[in-house]
Amino acid sequence: MTEELKELKRRLGVVSDLHNAEAVLSWDQQTYMPPKGAVPRSMQMATLGRLAHEHFISDDIGKLLDQVGSENGAHGYDSDEASLLRVTRRDYDKARRVPSAFVEELTRTASIGLEAWTQARMESNFKLFQPHLEKIVELEIQLANYLGYQDRIYDALLDEYEPGMTTRQVEQIFQPLKGELTALVNTLQKKSDAVNDAVLHDEYDEQQQWDFGIAVIKQIGFDFQSGRQDKSAHPFTTGFGIGDTRITTRVDKHFLPMMLFGTIHETGHALYDMGYRPELDRTPLAGGASLGVHESQSRLWENVVGRSRGFWKYWFPRLREVFPSQLADQDAESFYRAINKVAPSFIRVEADEVTYSLHIMLRFEIENMLVERKVKVVDVPELWNAKMKEYLGIVPPDDAQGCLQDIHWSYGSIGYFATYSLGSMFAVQLFEQAQREIPTLLQQIENGEYAELLGWLRKNLHAHGRKFTLDELAKRITGESLQSRSYVAYLKKKFGEIYGI
Amino acid sequence: MTEELKELKRRLGVVSDLHNAEAVLSWDQQTYMPPKGAVPRSMQMATLGRLAHEHFISDDIGKLLDQVGSENGAHGYDSDEASLLRVTRRDYDKARRVPSAFVEELTRTASIGLEAWTQARMESNFKLFQPHLEKIVELEIQLANYLGYQDRIYDALLDEYEPGMTTRQVEQIFQPLKGELTALVNTLQKKSDAVNDAVLHDEYDEQQQWDFGIAVIKQIGFDFQSGRQDKSAHPFTTGFGIGDTRITTRVDKHFLPMMLFGTIHETGHALYDMGYRPELDRTPLAGGASLGVHESQSRLWENVVGRSRGFWKYWFPRLREVFPSQLADQDAESFYRAINKVAPSFIRVEADEVTYSLHIMLRFEIENMLVERKVKVVDVPELWNAKMKEYLGIVPPDDAQGCLQDIHWSYGSIGYFATYSLGSMFAVQLFEQAQREIPTLLQQIENGEYAELLGWLRKNLHAHGRKFTLDELAKRITGESLQSRSYVAYLKKKFGEIYGI
Repeated sequence: MTEELKELKRRLGVVSDLHNAEAVLSWDQQTYMPPKGAVPRSMQMATLGRLAHEHFISDDIGKLLDQVGSENGAHGYDSDEASLLRVTRRDYDKARRVPSAFVEELTRTASIGLEAWTQARMESNFKLFQPHLEKIVELEIQLANYLGYQDRIYDALLDEYEPGMTTRQVEQIFQPLKGELTALVNTLQKKSDAVNDAVLHDEYDEQQQWDFGIAVIKQIGFDFQSGRQDKSAHPFTTGFGIGDTRITTRVDKHFLPMMLFGTIHETGHALYDMGYRPELDRTPLAGGASLGVHESQSRLWENVVGRSRGFWKYWFPRLREVFPSQLADQDAESFYRAINKVAPSFIRVEADEVTYSLHIMLRFEIENMLVERKVKVVDVPELWNAKMKEYLGIVPPDDAQGCLQDIHWSYGSIGYFATYSLGSMFAVQLFEQAQREIPTLLQQIENGEYAELLGWLRKNLHAHGRKFTLDELAKRITGESLQSRSYVAYLKKKFGEIYGI
Repeated sequence: MTEELKELKRRLGVVSDLHNAEAVLSWDQQTYMPPKGAVPRSMQMATLGRLAHEHFISDDIGKLLDQVGSENGAHGYDSDEASLLRVTRRDYDKARRVPSAFVEELTRTASIGLEAWTQARMESNFKLFQPHLEKIVELEIQLANYLGYQDRIYDALLDEYEPGMTTRQVEQIFQPLKGELTALVNTLQKKSDAVNDAVLHDEYDEQQQWDFGIAVIKQIGFDFQSGRQDKSAHPFTTGFGIGDTRITTRVDKHFLPMMLFGTIHETGHALYDMGYRPELDRTPLAGGASLGVHESQSRLWENVVGRSRGFWKYWFPRLREVFPSQLADQDAESFYRAINKVAPSFIRVEADEVTYSLHIMLRFEIENMLVERKVKVVDVPELWNAKMKEYLGIVPPDDAQGCLQDIHWSYGSIGYFATYSLGSMFAVQLFEQAQREIPTLLQQIENGEYAELLGWLRKNLHAHGRKFTLDELAKRITGESLQSRSYVAYLKKKFGEIYGI
């Protein structure tokens, strides 16, 4: 390693330490911080964020990137060195394009917007949020112009969350999917009585739920030497370096899936964060490739594995040992059906596997229209409800259950939503490939064995950290780009069978 | 406020944010961090510490101090402005005197020393620690030479923990105290059967202990909107700005005082940290004046209030409601006696109020001899045991219970111990003054009312943050410098009565 590369890595290590420290403060804020700690905490986090940004966009880093880059022609695209330079350069150029004063304005606007949204949602009063969303949309348009784009303005925003992916690509994936999903929802709705999920709403002791969840994720492979689980209002995964990944969950005494699938979902994220090669730690290559790829891991474990028949063949008897009276009249099959009930609903985060992506398409379309100025913020509620009617056949009774339900826009996050669906699709595409390469995979899942699947994901995906884009990973691992074909087939097969179609 | 003062405060705010962030990381490390998080965490904390140091000792801060100082003649000594300049200048000049490379060497040595000490104490093998302690002593001598001193080399080290206090002053306070305490211990030892504390070693449910402790400190005034309590191996208090103060405790099922008095002790520290005027936040004036003054607050609540007869007149009936069978044959008086049993013992942190300061004097004397090169590290165990014999009449069976018991030296902390005793003394001196100014104070304590005492401490002490030294505070509040007279009188009266002398 040259002196320049060493110096580059030293400086990137400082940036990484600052980001990790900020993440610890954020974790604490969402888990244990007392209420009056909020004000000093926001200042501490702002300082860490600002210092990390300043250290990263320094001219020195630019010079080192140039110097190391020119000496580094000998290394292949996949090598740690070439990848470090490529990904750091990408991050660096993007970070340099946005003026610090603008970042501060966006942060400030988002912080006020978040507060206004909280109030607006509580009162279900879109008017309270409207002026803030208007300002946020204008700033996001400005951000896109700073970042630059070739084709569509939305490309610049999407790229923040899903590097390399374009709006047109997403549309090409979503377009056929929309027809398939609305048709499937329609068909399943006609047999909505075929699945009864009342058992999930019985009373389940919170501590027993917690303990069961811990047992499940331990067996999946969550390493409690390198992580822990705590409670928070909104579940999330975060990490502070290779040896310390944290997940949170929430427990609802009267709704078993809340904790259970929330915990498995976050574990999927955590396994990804725990799995990059230690050599990548404290560099921009540490972590996950993109939000979409991250979501593929949470959805793979939560849905493709966690809501599968084989999974519950193993776990249902164990769950019934914990809750014998509540599950007395159930068996693995009835429980499997209950956790896979499909029903159009208003709230995205509570949606089933079939309707979920329709919620996403709606948001993706509205976001595009907003930044292309094809719709005004004031008209969002009406547009939202019209699309809900069109895609899911239902109309929210108020905006709290409609266009005010998600936090993302309020904190200045436009371009994020699509990654949830891309992740769901990629999860299925990956799992299909894993089945090809591990012929006994389904049998292993029925036996409660996950080590080979996890090992396969580690080797093919997790180990690479941020080296590759979603498209690069899809091609490397499955031989083709991300596609919705496998996802649609998976949904049709699984739910067709459950609903007897 | 001039532009220069604003800029100075802005820069000091960044330093404060970095220190607070480091404190959050340290708190997490000691409470919730998974084992494998240790390595990345140490790097993150080192980065934050280094950046805070670099930002603080920058030439810019020096220039701003000069500029603001020259314009600031109009403000009185006690004013926020003059105090900010005075205290920041003191910190700044000291920080600039020590080369960064030396600080790094000390940190590295301490980190290795801590590991060696942990092993040495576990095996009770001083030889394992000896070479590390030798290096640490040499570095501390070097540190003292960097910092500078007028009279005794130990002054420079003591000043790190108790600004403005000299070795000679401490000796003048300790000298008469030593005779009084050894005599008192001797006298009490002759009647050692007069107090039976077996009840404290009964079995007490841990959760019930925890809940009782929370009830006690809430009533004392710990604000759970601005703080919280967690568990850790070694109890401590930390804070991350004016709205967020954390304490930790530990619970022993078979030793009630562990949690109870530990919790009250840390609450004393926390109330001090919660009490400075908010205007001082994010400046070097935030926090406590010194370790000695901090300890005065923990000891005041733990011992002077918490181990008083009046305190238990109120709390004993409530404790017996929680533990009716364990406390069936006790009353407030017998319980009060039990928690005040005096007995020479090997371990400082478990010592009673009477013997405690003798443990301290021993350490203070040995530290002085070490840095004055009057004793070699290799001879410390023998010297320790000889002094234990002389002051307490007992000799530790091994070094784990002797000179290896405390962590301080291992991490390069020489000059710290005296502050524990200075704090114990100051606690009594303060409480005497409070009694003069609040005539019904003892009655209030019998009624479980602490608001007036806390208000008095807030107004006279806490509010000032780091503005004044221990000596300045003692004179302002009690009209005289720190003295041991009140402390000796308090101990003689309290324990003379308990032991019927």
